[in-house]
Amino acid sequence: MQRYVNVSEKVAGGGLLHRRTLLGVAAFGGVAAAGKSLAAPLAVPEWSEVPGLPMSGYGQPSPFEAHVQRPVLGLYPEGTGDGAGVSFTPLEHLEGTITPNGLFFERHHSGIPEIDPTRHELVIHGLVRQPRVFTSEDLVGMPLITQTVFLECAGNSLFNSLAEPQQRSAGEIHGLIGAAEWTGVRLADLLDLVGIDPRATWILAEGADAAKQSRSIPLSKIIDGDAMVALYQNGERLRPEQGYPMRLVLPGWQGSMQTKWLRRIKLVDGPTQTKDETSKYSLSQKDGRAQQFIFEMGVKSVITRPSPGIAPTRPGLYQISGLAWSGAGRIVRVQVSADGGTSWADALLDGDARPKMLTRFRLPWDWSGEPALLMSRATDEMGAVQPTRMEWYAPWAPEQLYHQNAIQVWSVAATGEVQNVYL
Amino acid sequence: MQRYVNVSEKVAGGGLLHRRTLLGVAAFGGVAAAGKSLAAPLAVPEWSEVPGLPMSGYGQPSPFEAHVQRPVLGLYPEGTGDGAGVSFTPLEHLEGTITPNGLFFERHHSGIPEIDPTRHELVIHGLVRQPRVFTSEDLVGMPLITQTVFLECAGNSLFNSLAEPQQRSAGEIHGLIGAAEWTGVRLADLLDLVGIDPRATWILAEGADAAKQSRSIPLSKIIDGDAMVALYQNGERLRPEQGYPMRLVLPGWQGSMQTKWLRRIKLVDGPTQTKDETSKYSLSQKDGRAQQFIFEMGVKSVITRPSPGIAPTRPGLYQISGLAWSGAGRIVRVQVSADGGTSWADALLDGDARPKMLTRFRLPWDWSGEPALLMSRATDEMGAVQPTRMEWYAPWAPEQLYHQNAIQVWSVAATGEVQNVYL
Repeated sequence: MQRYVNVSEKVAGGGLLHRRTLLGVAAFGGVAAAGKSLAAPLAVPEWSEVPGLPMSGYGQPSPFEAHVQRPVLGLYPEGTGDGAGVSFTPLEHLEGTITPNGLFFERHHSGIPEIDPTRHELVIHGLVRQPRVFTSEDLVGMPLITQTVFLECAGNSLFNSLAEPQQRSAGEIHGLIGAAEWTGVRLADLLDLVGIDPRATWILAEGADAAKQSRSIPLSKIIDGDAMVALYQNGERLRPEQGYPMRLVLPGWQGSMQTKWLRRIKLVDGPTQTKDETSKYSLSQKDGRAQQFIFEMGVKSVITRPSPGIAPTRPGLYQISGLAWSGAGRIVRVQVSADGGTSWADALLDGDARPKMLTRFRLPWDWSGEPALLMSRATDEMGAVQPTRMEWYAPWAPEQLYHQNAIQVWSVAATGEVQNVYL
Repeated sequence: MQRYVNVSEKVAGGGLLHRRTLLGVAAFGGVAAAGKSLAAPLAVPEWSEVPGLPMSGYGQPSPFEAHVQRPVLGLYPEGTGDGAGVSFTPLEHLEGTITPNGLFFERHHSGIPEIDPTRHELVIHGLVRQPRVFTSEDLVGMPLITQTVFLECAGNSLFNSLAEPQQRSAGEIHGLIGAAEWTGVRLADLLDLVGIDPRATWILAEGADAAKQSRSIPLSKIIDGDAMVALYQNGERLRPEQGYPMRLVLPGWQGSMQTKWLRRIKLVDGPTQTKDETSKYSLSQKDGRAQQFIFEMGVKSVITRPSPGIAPTRPGLYQISGLAWSGAGRIVRVQVSADGGTSWADALLDGDARPKMLTRFRLPWDWSGEPALLMSRATDEMGAVQPTRMEWYAPWAPEQLYHQNAIQVWSVAATGEVQNVYL
């Protein structure tokens, strides 16, 4: 496990301290002021005096955490695009790296189909030796694999592509991402079972939702790749909004390809140009042309504490905490700045930095009470470094909103209020 | 990721195949028979024809998974021991290694207190330089660490200590265990903050439930150890039944010490002999004496598929799947037998075998349709090997039920029915 050692070295401007600063050298989060010494005998609260609630079949969060919800954003006027929209993972209320299933973001094009798993079938056909039909129970009985990876919508952070910075929570800006332990069947194994015609170079994957969300995927992601048909998320069967009873998981690639409610895989000899990869999820360049088939999500990070609504209350020592990830592999470095990018300090990466998985970073910060500009900058094992917003924006047309992985800047006012700003 | 290769070597009796047997050499789980070729055009089910359900703030499992519940077992007649009992993690319905929060087992001595986190306080006192009081918000602002570890009740699997084998599901026998990503404050850091008196050698940890569940813990587990005060479980704040707003996590040690609803830590100069470590959680030997303070959970494994209620339906190829763990560290080997222990084959360990964490193992099995006896045997990095039931039982008095880590034997009848048997 991570250990903090007895140093309190200032490592960058704005009060950033060495990442292993020992807790004991000072009190974090204003504890020195808030923590009381023990004067009176320990009070016995009323909940310690009577037997509590009984056991239950399926547990729920505390009523005192009822504010921790996915903020819902419908994309069309009520009644015109039923079920089309997003809900965001509330990143600023979470810690660690796993996203609990109830708070994993949603992006639906026509709502959540209510699928009876005993009637749902997955067909694999097209350029194959022997087309086959599988139920989810067929798949559960096959050799399963487990992968712990993030899943991010191509449209995540699109608010920061707009001309003016939006005042929203960290989750409402960057929360079209979640991470989970997925268990299912390796897609290459399923294709072995049907037999691949040598002419096949791509697949079409189609969902059972009313929008028939469908995307083309190159066969190279599957053969010798990590593509899987997931049946379980964080131990239990997929939730309806995550594709129950089965979905594609393509580690590191954009979410819209990771087809939920998977009903059909057709092996084909080239991309099929579905509506979901032409009118949507293509990237408009400044020169008027569009880029298609940019699959991998870029290297990225965001500070979740402090962030809008999660504000420091008084000058003192705080732990900056955030998430970093890359579709290309492992995160090897996260740097933090408290002075708008003038100076940077290395954050502590908590636990194993696993490939294509969220990595938690942390760094102590001695806040003087002066206005500050907090930023984080991630580097992945391929050497890719997270760009500034201006760097990110350079090739794109103004209306291009996808694959936004620019450095987030949070301004901290003397009052402690945190706002989204562009530099 | 794990890969299966093109072999189908028989590696032990009763139809066990090499752990990397390629899916393509045969159809698993009766898929050859059940899988249909594609004759008619693909049907469009009704749920694909209308917009689906909208997004939501906090998601729930599919109604079709309503049978996946924690079985609840009250330990006292109704009205006499309110809230005292257990609920079991339904291991046979889960896959991977993470236990979803809603299905994580419970063991309460007086129910679940309904704690207002703004009023709950943790006091650290006794042999310290400066007693202190912390709220959960104080702790959230401190340097946090994340550890992914299992948590097992000392009474797990106690049904297999009874004279006759009980016919219950895998979860109802072995499901007083769960595994999660825990985030919180390292307890050593908190003790640094209050200052440890050199005379202190143990702590007393006490919960805020009506039973005042309390245990003594040697300081060595804390100083240079991995003990933590957990605030988050699998990303979100602890559930009420897991100790909201804070609990102890002592990786690898018995669950009853990992105090839920933690309200008090007292530094003391020896064990305090609370009711929960004298009348309970002590181990009666054959010679009439009792052992106290056996903290570490032994090396253990269980096959979850097949298991009672999760039966093979016809002769053919199946994937045996199960969980292994050890309180001493990593799992390095799991062997499976299909012939009652006459021959053994090495199972595939899925993903990283992390210390003090559940490890998923898998092995292909070509079931002939003859009666079979399935067993799994785990070995940890310290070289400890899971004992047979007779080996485990040797030192204990008949009434001793704790720390049962014996090899589970499932008998598979020609009908496919799976039962719990003793050899």
